[in-house]
Amino acid sequence: MEPVAIVIVIALLQYVAFGMLVGRARGTYGVKAPAVTGHEIFERYFRVHYNTLELLVAFVPAMWLFGTYVSPKWAAGLGLVYVVGRVLYLRSYVADPAKREIGFGMSVLPVIVLLIGGLWGAAQRLL
Amino acid sequence: MEPVAIVIVIALLQYVAFGMLVGRARGTYGVKAPAVTGHEIFERYFRVHYNTLELLVAFVPAMWLFGTYVSPKWAAGLGLVYVVGRVLYLRSYVADPAKREIGFGMSVLPVIVLLIGGLWGAAQRLL
Amino acid sequence: MEPVAIVIVIALLQYVAFGMLVGRARGTYGVKAPAVTGHEIFERYFRVHYNTLELLVAFVPAMWLFGTYVSPKWAAGLGLVYVVGRVLYLRSYVADPAKREIGFGMSVLPVIVLLIGGLWGAAQRLL
Repeated sequence: MEPVAIVIVIALLQYVAFGMLVGRARGTYGVKAPAVTGHEIFERYFRVHYNTLELLVAFVPAMWLFGTYVSPKWAAGLGLVYVVGRVLYLRSYVADPAKREIGFGMSVLPVIVLLIGGLWGAAQRLL
Repeated sequence: MEPVAIVIVIALLQYVAFGMLVGRARGTYGVKAPAVTGHEIFERYFRVHYNTLELLVAFVPAMWLFGTYVSPKWAAGLGLVYVVGRVLYLRSYVADPAKREIGFGMSVLPVIVLLIGGLWGAAQRLL
Repeated sequence: MEPVAIVIVIALLQYVAFGMLVGRARGTYGVKAPAVTGHEIFERYFRVHYNTLELLVAFVPAMWLFGTYVSPKWAAGLGLVYVVGRVLYLRSYVADPAKREIGFGMSVLPVIVLLIGGLWGAAQRLL
């Protein structure tokens, strides 16, 4: 399971980095806590961070279950597609939120494949 | 642990479906990213999705620890109560946020039972 | 892994308690769902809860991987530093958001150490 563990940590470090971009944007655009709105560009960084949070809640257990019940190598590979998809998502969303679809799909699809694969693998093992 | 894994995936797929309802509500009610306010019904779907996210962060590890240290079957059963509670929560919140209590309680209580049971089971094993 | 499991549950119960403070603040300051803004003090409790959610998404898997690949006892110790840091974060943020840095650092740093240690440990095991 080491490849799975490594890709999970890479995805989590990416997410921590996204959080740091939000902190920097607070300073750059003068949005003081507890406010999370007030400047369009800050809000884009904030939403990228939170959308990544939304996905990670499913991504981490899905990686682990797919790795356990299907294949650790395929889990790690799908996880890397997700990480690259998140980079595209960040870039396109900050430039223009209307163009976020490709990066979004590239990071949501691996999560759905991991979830359904994990479900299938666990059900096979049970039967 | 397969029953626990299966119920975790079901809860995560439900959450992904809630996220899709938010995406659809963006279109229906004309709330463009990065905004997350601007139409009452959109905001209800958005809050249901995020409240489910809030719970899943505790639900997934609690399921795993309760399944490991207490009983996988009871973990799976409590997890299914949570899933049904989330369906009620979605329906009642979108209809009228003031009436969300029953679905809320039915999904929060299993999480608290799983957490405290997991704590008790791990402490028993340690002693 | 029992010490790791126990500290994970303590951190999750703390987070559930933070969520209850948000629910109480809704009543005290008259912020009705689905709104999450409208009163400064409510917003502080709300942001403390959500910032804790942001960290937990990384904290829980980081604790588990560090415990698995490096040391369960050190994972548990770092986890307790995180829990204390979150108490300081809550107190200082509610009093004055500008003074949240110490509690923030004391809870973010353990998460980063757990992540990087987990990555290092898993990579060592793989090689």
